[in-house]
Amino acid sequence: MRNQILKGRLRPGVRLPATRDLASQYDFSRGTIVRAFEELKSEGYIEGSTGSGTYVRRVLPDELLQAKQEAGTWAAPVPKNGRRLSDYGRRATLFSNSDNRPSRTFRANLPAHDLFPMGLWAQIASRRLRRISTSHLLVCDAMGYAPLRGAVADYLTASRGVKCVPEQVAIVAGMQEALDLATRLFVNPGERVCMENPGYPGAANVFNAVGAKVVRISLDEEGMRFDERRLEGARLVYVTPGHQFPLGITMSLPRRLQLLEWARRAGAILFEDDYDSEYRYFGRPVPALQGLDPYGVVLFAGSFSKVLFPSLRLGYIVVPPDLVERFTAIISITRRHAPLLDQTVLCDFLTEGHFGRHLRRMRDVYAERLSILSEEANLRLTGLLEVSDVQAGLQTTGWLCGIDAESAAAAAAKRGVEVTPVDRYSQGRVVPQRLQLGFAAFDEREIRRGVRELAIALEGAR
Amino acid sequence: MRNQILKGRLRPGVRLPATRDLASQYDFSRGTIVRAFEELKSEGYIEGSTGSGTYVRRVLPDELLQAKQEAGTWAAPVPKNGRRLSDYGRRATLFSNSDNRPSRTFRANLPAHDLFPMGLWAQIASRRLRRISTSHLLVCDAMGYAPLRGAVADYLTASRGVKCVPEQVAIVAGMQEALDLATRLFVNPGERVCMENPGYPGAANVFNAVGAKVVRISLDEEGMRFDERRLEGARLVYVTPGHQFPLGITMSLPRRLQLLEWARRAGAILFEDDYDSEYRYFGRPVPALQGLDPYGVVLFAGSFSKVLFPSLRLGYIVVPPDLVERFTAIISITRRHAPLLDQTVLCDFLTEGHFGRHLRRMRDVYAERLSILSEEANLRLTGLLEVSDVQAGLQTTGWLCGIDAESAAAAAAKRGVEVTPVDRYSQGRVVPQRLQLGFAAFDEREIRRGVRELAIALEGAR
Repeated sequence: MRNQILKGRLRPGVRLPATRDLASQYDFSRGTIVRAFEELKSEGYIEGSTGSGTYVRRVLPDELLQAKQEAGTWAAPVPKNGRRLSDYGRRATLFSNSDNRPSRTFRANLPAHDLFPMGLWAQIASRRLRRISTSHLLVCDAMGYAPLRGAVADYLTASRGVKCVPEQVAIVAGMQEALDLATRLFVNPGERVCMENPGYPGAANVFNAVGAKVVRISLDEEGMRFDERRLEGARLVYVTPGHQFPLGITMSLPRRLQLLEWARRAGAILFEDDYDSEYRYFGRPVPALQGLDPYGVVLFAGSFSKVLFPSLRLGYIVVPPDLVERFTAIISITRRHAPLLDQTVLCDFLTEGHFGRHLRRMRDVYAERLSILSEEANLRLTGLLEVSDVQAGLQTTGWLCGIDAESAAAAAAKRGVEVTPVDRYSQGRVVPQRLQLGFAAFDEREIRRGVRELAIALEGAR
Repeated sequence: MRNQILKGRLRPGVRLPATRDLASQYDFSRGTIVRAFEELKSEGYIEGSTGSGTYVRRVLPDELLQAKQEAGTWAAPVPKNGRRLSDYGRRATLFSNSDNRPSRTFRANLPAHDLFPMGLWAQIASRRLRRISTSHLLVCDAMGYAPLRGAVADYLTASRGVKCVPEQVAIVAGMQEALDLATRLFVNPGERVCMENPGYPGAANVFNAVGAKVVRISLDEEGMRFDERRLEGARLVYVTPGHQFPLGITMSLPRRLQLLEWARRAGAILFEDDYDSEYRYFGRPVPALQGLDPYGVVLFAGSFSKVLFPSLRLGYIVVPPDLVERFTAIISITRRHAPLLDQTVLCDFLTEGHFGRHLRRMRDVYAERLSILSEEANLRLTGLLEVSDVQAGLQTTGWLCGIDAESAAAAAAKRGVEVTPVDRYSQGRVVPQRLQLGFAAFDEREIRRGVRELAIALEGAR
């Protein structure tokens, strides 16, 4: 009957058969029919009362009742006057994900997923799930699972020179969420945000969507230039001091100190993206900018996507003590907290030493792969691509010798090799042009083949 | 040496000992010392060259070097000129979580977690983890794991009368994220958002933080009034048509049709929060407002927090076809996607029928608990609290007979019973006053004890 009314077959004002007649017609008890009528009445489909007669409600707008929309189709039209989005809604653009495409040699930002000890992870997860207490089904603190926050604080203090207590650590869904939360808390639409040029596109995406005026600052061999004119008025400055994205430069101590001092004076926030800093193949890791900060101006963020696996969606942000309350509030409003079971498994993985062991193993593997790449490049790419001697991260870059980067990338793609023109991360064009090459996800054979193919492609593109 | 420089013990300009001397002093090879010097130089701590002498870099700002901040303390001070937050940052307030406190009889919004088949969930998770392919370690589509989106679309089509294809379903971290995404996409600061009065505080929290002008609209027995004056100019209207929060009213068909028609004319978005609609103890479930929408003006959202468990942080939002691209963009920027392994486990739980079985079982348990509450309330609370006959959800409300709701709640708390004054969800005061009582998480003994204690408390508060 509900369907008949919605489809317009039973028109508004039509008198319905008596419950007694319906009961005998459909062979139901009269009580059943009366209950169904009560329900339809409570939902506003029909009116009247048993005895005086029941009618299809008169106030139902005709037009709607006859609108036909089939289930299982993409039928709903765009509203005639168009879609009215917010300013944010109009600015947000897709931050696309190359990881879904089949993997090709030298794709950047790709760790060696095939070497992740998934069996071990599965074992820890099973143990956690078997022993789970009801309290772990309930929500946790917005900042995350307390033992995990402690384990992350310990790790960052020991390995990254970060100065923090567990209360300052928020567990988030990776770098994008860390960027989004920080930008929302500190930047109004129209305000200035600075970042490196070239720099991480995921950050630019967040800043542009929020409506920030994104100012790019160029680099030299000490990292981002200290350009006070361009920094002026910036509410937030995004930097990758440990290992610049995409060039791999380590920001020098004087630059770090100048930035900290400037941020204090300007009342600005420095967002330190510590991506991939676990992977340094020569010398000791460079301590974090955050560890030098006596003013509480640095937000330090990292992700477990590259050391563990990206689909886990877990990372962290370390915030100055007086901002803990603000971060708790924004996370509680926007997503309550990160999933708790995943957090408990990660916590065990860290505290039982698996994380450290996996990291050391991968460091050896990646160092070996990088040295194969350097060796092959010396042998076959001289005069075509000068590969830099950066000794960190999952990718390196090379200067093209008079070849256009986009043509080079296109020629390489035709030979099954994926190299990224660094200018894709830049505002404006930088000469000489560079290519980014990921080496971490590819074994010796693939790297040697990749370099051979790249050499042929670059010869052709010259 | 790095520490000595940072602590100001080696002052800028000081000449460092020769590498040869340091090598013999510390019993290292000279090569090791030279590499260490190179590293410090590349980080900008020292300058000069072996041979002509090496110095602590002169440009290091004195002040910073001597600033002392100990690891492991909450030492970082608030910047002297205060913290400069964005408008959003200043408006965001904690959406607090009662679930962390010990559970007390009649707390609302609490399912019976002790009855969740965790063993079964663990088994499915173990199976998934054992068989995981490398592709599940990589990121997935921003809208979620395709088979899960399909399973959710099937479930919503069959059980909730939602009209959608899997492409319209986005997997999100629960209702808060659904609200946050929708608000960001459609509402600018200063614009109007309407919601029910009383209504869900989690929604009000999101709207206020974004800077919306939140307009409350009162209810009658057909649900939210169709108040065109108050609706005027609203960009988004938040409603709970299936089972109003907190009063349990089902929105009548005419109201639904009026709202849809108005939203089409106004170019506004209707946010349908379908919370707890799985739990209806009498009659057939009321189909979703979304299923009546021929205009593409409804966003339909629900969560798995109550049927499964809240710490999972998974829910869904069904969006009109032309908005799929916008939602994909905002999710890709703000968090990439929901964690993939959790999504695969949930997918199996749904498609293998466990979800349906668990739901039917819980429906029986909760129906029984609700009837015990009604029976006990009739017996012991007459003249104190008139419990409503709502037959859905995890909680019900009762009208207080001339007793102040806050005093009643305080008196109940002293006797170990947690009842929530409905006015806490309202703007302004509503007479007669009501209390909200959760019944789902408490067994027969607890409910009977709770009603006895509540009766004593209310007698005292009268």
